[in-house]
Amino acid sequence: MPIRLKDIAQELGVSTVTVSKVLRGNPDIGVKTRARVLERLNALNYRPNMAARGLATGKTFTVGLIVPDLLQPFFAHFAKELGGVLRQHDRALLLASSEEDPKIEAQEILALIQRGVDVLVLASCRDELLPVPELSALPVPLVLFDRRFKRMKANFVGSDDVGAGELATRHLIELNRKRIAHIGGLQTSPARDRTAGYLRALERTGRKIDERYLVLRKRLEERGDDIGFSCMQGLLALRRPPDAVFCYNDMTAIGAIQATLQAGLKIPREMAIIGCGNFRYADYLQVPLSSIDQDTAELGRAAARLTLSIADSPQARVQSIVLKPRLVIRQSSAPPSLKISR
Amino acid sequence: MPIRLKDIAQELGVSTVTVSKVLRGNPDIGVKTRARVLERLNALNYRPNMAARGLATGKTFTVGLIVPDLLQPFFAHFAKELGGVLRQHDRALLLASSEEDPKIEAQEILALIQRGVDVLVLASCRDELLPVPELSALPVPLVLFDRRFKRMKANFVGSDDVGAGELATRHLIELNRKRIAHIGGLQTSPARDRTAGYLRALERTGRKIDERYLVLRKRLEERGDDIGFSCMQGLLALRRPPDAVFCYNDMTAIGAIQATLQAGLKIPREMAIIGCGNFRYADYLQVPLSSIDQDTAELGRAAARLTLSIADSPQARVQSIVLKPRLVIRQSSAPPSLKISR
Repeated sequence: MPIRLKDIAQELGVSTVTVSKVLRGNPDIGVKTRARVLERLNALNYRPNMAARGLATGKTFTVGLIVPDLLQPFFAHFAKELGGVLRQHDRALLLASSEEDPKIEAQEILALIQRGVDVLVLASCRDELLPVPELSALPVPLVLFDRRFKRMKANFVGSDDVGAGELATRHLIELNRKRIAHIGGLQTSPARDRTAGYLRALERTGRKIDERYLVLRKRLEERGDDIGFSCMQGLLALRRPPDAVFCYNDMTAIGAIQATLQAGLKIPREMAIIGCGNFRYADYLQVPLSSIDQDTAELGRAAARLTLSIADSPQARVQSIVLKPRLVIRQSSAPPSLKISR
Repeated sequence: MPIRLKDIAQELGVSTVTVSKVLRGNPDIGVKTRARVLERLNALNYRPNMAARGLATGKTFTVGLIVPDLLQPFFAHFAKELGGVLRQHDRALLLASSEEDPKIEAQEILALIQRGVDVLVLASCRDELLPVPELSALPVPLVLFDRRFKRMKANFVGSDDVGAGELATRHLIELNRKRIAHIGGLQTSPARDRTAGYLRALERTGRKIDERYLVLRKRLEERGDDIGFSCMQGLLALRRPPDAVFCYNDMTAIGAIQATLQAGLKIPREMAIIGCGNFRYADYLQVPLSSIDQDTAELGRAAARLTLSIADSPQARVQSIVLKPRLVIRQSSAPPSLKISR
């Protein structure tokens, strides 16, 4: 015979509502009562059954999130904000990481679908130019985050990355830098878009693009600092090295700073450097790092709102939410006139 | 009538094994076949049903993890490693954050239990000295991570934090520092244990404890940099300021470094500083930060192994896995003789 909450309530001398509230995690119930109820449920081997609830409603009240790497503060921050809003709406977040490997990503997508998530949020590590037939045929609604695909119309939450690249590069132009380099990525839409923004900003000033100053690498995420370091060493070895660099992300910029200092150059006087992402430690670096702020917290909240609305009406029109980036100037690209406080 | 994999296979001219492999996310199946199978399943509105599997086996193949804050690199790194091993064993990680709030933590615990996790891994933000009747009465096996409770016998994975405090303080003693301060926390077991290690190291050298150099705060996690900054300002305002500080964690140490530099003191000559956690950016700070390495990756893997073994036999004996910490010396506490490479 199934255990009824009513019987448990009677046994403990509390109301059924109280038992039900304890089960739903309602904070109204005092610690002692909560403990008594849980102890009794435990003794009866009662497992409140979301699985059964899922079978009844066809929903699991669970959202899946796949990010390339949880160690990147950008994705950790996004997951934190997304999960926070979902929690307030009684949804749980199933989190997976693809470790920047498309094969693992494919496995994780299927694993989450098998677990029956109501919506899948994906920051994909696949090449944005490749066709993605599997993603178009998923049996659950999909929200792409941060990275999108050229050949796929899908829900999307992310930054205006062309704008980010333009903003960073225009800032370097306004510092009167003559040889502005870019260390960028090749595979994902944010990488390509930031590079496009860099090129557009230069073209708008009528400058000729010097390809020697455009250094593009396949993968920048995992060990961005190492890659930034070696790319910068390459740039510094040119007969006429650049006097400013826009780096795809903050980790890459950290590596570029290390290589620049090691070469004995002054930042920002001889080399202005700007990253992208405005990560938490930018203020505390050896040279405090200028960056482009993507408002990661708002990206997480926007993704949560979109996810909740899709969970309620999966057939809704495809939406794209794109946030405007913001320039944050610190010492690594401070104009001579500007006194930057730490 | 339920959809049978056999029928789908026949329809598409593939084997039932192929369809089943696609569902299990097996990478053996080529992209095109995978897409065809998924498209057909989608058209049939087939939702592979982990919920049903869960009802049949009594397991959900899901592990719950609650951390105080995903933005702390320590917890993000742990979650990444734990999730990585679980993935290899076909388990998914349900991730929640308590935002350092015991009330949210209680809600999250119940929410995860309701979702039917097989094991719950918890880095609790509650005061380690308070009684925790609820935690002892949980209807799922529990693994405490990083923080434990004085009055509760439970599975645990974490660091030898007394050892960490001793290691850091002994290092400062060996630098011949005379007035060694400690900025620490009051509520969690790692905070209290690191303080205990600090005191033990000083006592072992026969030094009298000077309470003015012991600065303890309730919460250090969230804005550790701000708290480290203000605590350090307090220490610098003493008639005889310390000449070395062991900080509870790296964020607190970052704040202490800022306050020290702002006061015009040289690090490490006039003030040696060491943190704990050895976070990813320690090398790149304004003053590269000495720290205690807890081997976060191994903590994650150890927790995964313990979790998997408990999922298989929930009645197993309570286990405690405690890893030895390791000293990492960088510029912030470099001895005069030692040349530290960046």
